[in-house]
Amino acid sequence: MTEFEQWLASPVKKLDYQAQHAAEQRQTQLTKPAGSLGKLESIAIQLAAMQASEQPNADKVQISVFAADHGIAAEGISAFPQTVTAEMIRNFAHGGAAISVLAKELNADLDVINLGTISEIEPLTGVTDVRIADGTANFFHQAAMTAQQCQQAMLIGRDNVEQANNNNVALYVAGEMGIGNTTSATALASAVLELDAELLVGPGTGLNKAGVKHKTKIINQAINKHRLQMKTPLDMLRYLGGFEIAALTGAYLHCAKLGLPVIIDGFIATVAALLARQISSEATQWFIYSHNSKEPGHRIVMQALQAEPLLDMSMRLGEASGAASIVPLIRIACALHNKMATFEEASVSAKS
Amino acid sequence: MTEFEQWLASPVKKLDYQAQHAAEQRQTQLTKPAGSLGKLESIAIQLAAMQASEQPNADKVQISVFAADHGIAAEGISAFPQTVTAEMIRNFAHGGAAISVLAKELNADLDVINLGTISEIEPLTGVTDVRIADGTANFFHQAAMTAQQCQQAMLIGRDNVEQANNNNVALYVAGEMGIGNTTSATALASAVLELDAELLVGPGTGLNKAGVKHKTKIINQAINKHRLQMKTPLDMLRYLGGFEIAALTGAYLHCAKLGLPVIIDGFIATVAALLARQISSEATQWFIYSHNSKEPGHRIVMQALQAEPLLDMSMRLGEASGAASIVPLIRIACALHNKMATFEEASVSAKS
Repeated sequence: MTEFEQWLASPVKKLDYQAQHAAEQRQTQLTKPAGSLGKLESIAIQLAAMQASEQPNADKVQISVFAADHGIAAEGISAFPQTVTAEMIRNFAHGGAAISVLAKELNADLDVINLGTISEIEPLTGVTDVRIADGTANFFHQAAMTAQQCQQAMLIGRDNVEQANNNNVALYVAGEMGIGNTTSATALASAVLELDAELLVGPGTGLNKAGVKHKTKIINQAINKHRLQMKTPLDMLRYLGGFEIAALTGAYLHCAKLGLPVIIDGFIATVAALLARQISSEATQWFIYSHNSKEPGHRIVMQALQAEPLLDMSMRLGEASGAASIVPLIRIACALHNKMATFEEASVSAKS
Repeated sequence: MTEFEQWLASPVKKLDYQAQHAAEQRQTQLTKPAGSLGKLESIAIQLAAMQASEQPNADKVQISVFAADHGIAAEGISAFPQTVTAEMIRNFAHGGAAISVLAKELNADLDVINLGTISEIEPLTGVTDVRIADGTANFFHQAAMTAQQCQQAMLIGRDNVEQANNNNVALYVAGEMGIGNTTSATALASAVLELDAELLVGPGTGLNKAGVKHKTKIINQAINKHRLQMKTPLDMLRYLGGFEIAALTGAYLHCAKLGLPVIIDGFIATVAALLARQISSEATQWFIYSHNSKEPGHRIVMQALQAEPLLDMSMRLGEASGAASIVPLIRIACALHNKMATFEEASVSAKS
């Protein structure tokens, strides 16, 4: 077996059901009607099982944004020009993007990883340049990646998680940037779920109706073209995916293997989570779903994952922005769980 | 006119539509697809109109919890004994309650105001004792408050807001504690909306099915008894309300008169917001609705207010806990609005 195959075959870590049970018990003893903190209770309990601790925490957070360009952009499927991928990488580095502001507000480390913009970018503080190629190939005509490129991208995601875990982060948050990547993600979801793209396609960064129709046609034709070649989830990822989506998939798988809680962002990230589940069905135990994206396909992918999001903020930005936005709520949930008094401690009478 | 009547008749402050427009314009220039931050955009714009500033903030926050006992508790309509109101006031003061933990996490000031527990409480740091009576009267038999008591409670709410505003807070958050007060709030909503209590009654802190049925019967009978006496919203508040609900109503009205943005908590607080609207229809412009409560009547009261909540966390605790939980999201929304780069600043290409 290659290093890649060995890694893929390695098991997912088990949740700690003893810690989960202890956390559930603790919640019933806190000075409030049982269940009255709703999702703030369930997220603390979920995190207790993941962190193997009755008292979970969300203090130290790593945010990683994987960026790359897409050959499929040549088919005119995005509202923004392809130069925006590199421009946004610079914006991440200079602190002007949504995720830059969020990382600072949350006091979280921000890694930006360039897996393959269409052209080289000058060195930027906070940006790791690991360009695999000048963007993926155009999957309307050929596989987006070679098998080797797809593995390389997945291992870049894995290595980023390995590093975060070595830094003892409590939560791993990941996101993506890449003009054209809702097309790639929609094609992947279509292929995995065996659904006509029409059911999944949305406006992405802002297509009009005609643009959405064109995008649908492109995706369906591309899937038809590659159908016989796409036998495994890895094949689908390689034919229709992007470097950043493969990196996210690798990162999510490695979080599950190491037992690091990971917050899943919006549509594109959730498609990567779906791929991770297709590759290793138990991986989803380690996923915390942040929010309902406005991108129409998200609901369908979430249903396929039987996933319940924490929030619905009508967001559709990507860049890990939705995932980062729930970090303060997880921190509040942990504070309530760990710091509220029990009925006994506070001498408060229980239910009569 | 009395001081109370003069205050009631004073106008609601106007929103600043120029600041709102400037904030809307700013959002379209930030480096993200237009609208892609969803509710994080709309809350920043809403706050800009309220704070008359293109760049709103939610830094300094005041949290007030109004507490009182209810005579209706004698009818066995709560899952918890009435002693819990005083016990929870002690718990607020000692830092063990949900809202105590939240206030600390948010670095917010916490006022606890005792408007009338059934018996006196020893002096406690952080608790203001302004007991009007040993709880309200039992509204199954008579009006819960005298006209004078109801005015007194409303003015206590007003004065708390006046003080917060003098302290230059950016946001005012209020909540309640009082065993029996979902019964009082449900009766008020029934009377105001002219709906059978059956449509609104829920388990409160944890009643079973038989308890909910009993509560419904008590409320419907009480409303029938007082129907002819309840001609105005103030009459309804006095006959069916509680000291803490009247204080919330007064506080909400005063926020609107001063132009201080106020975050509305769950079911009981939303009923106080409904009363405030019945008294002064324009007051609702100053209300930010925090979340959907699990208490079944909340949805109906929110519909009556045409209110859109920011979150749905399945919470039903009260104490201002839901309202406080959205403060971090409002802070994030302000940070994104104020600190993200514009397309021009970041040299990012616009939509093609």
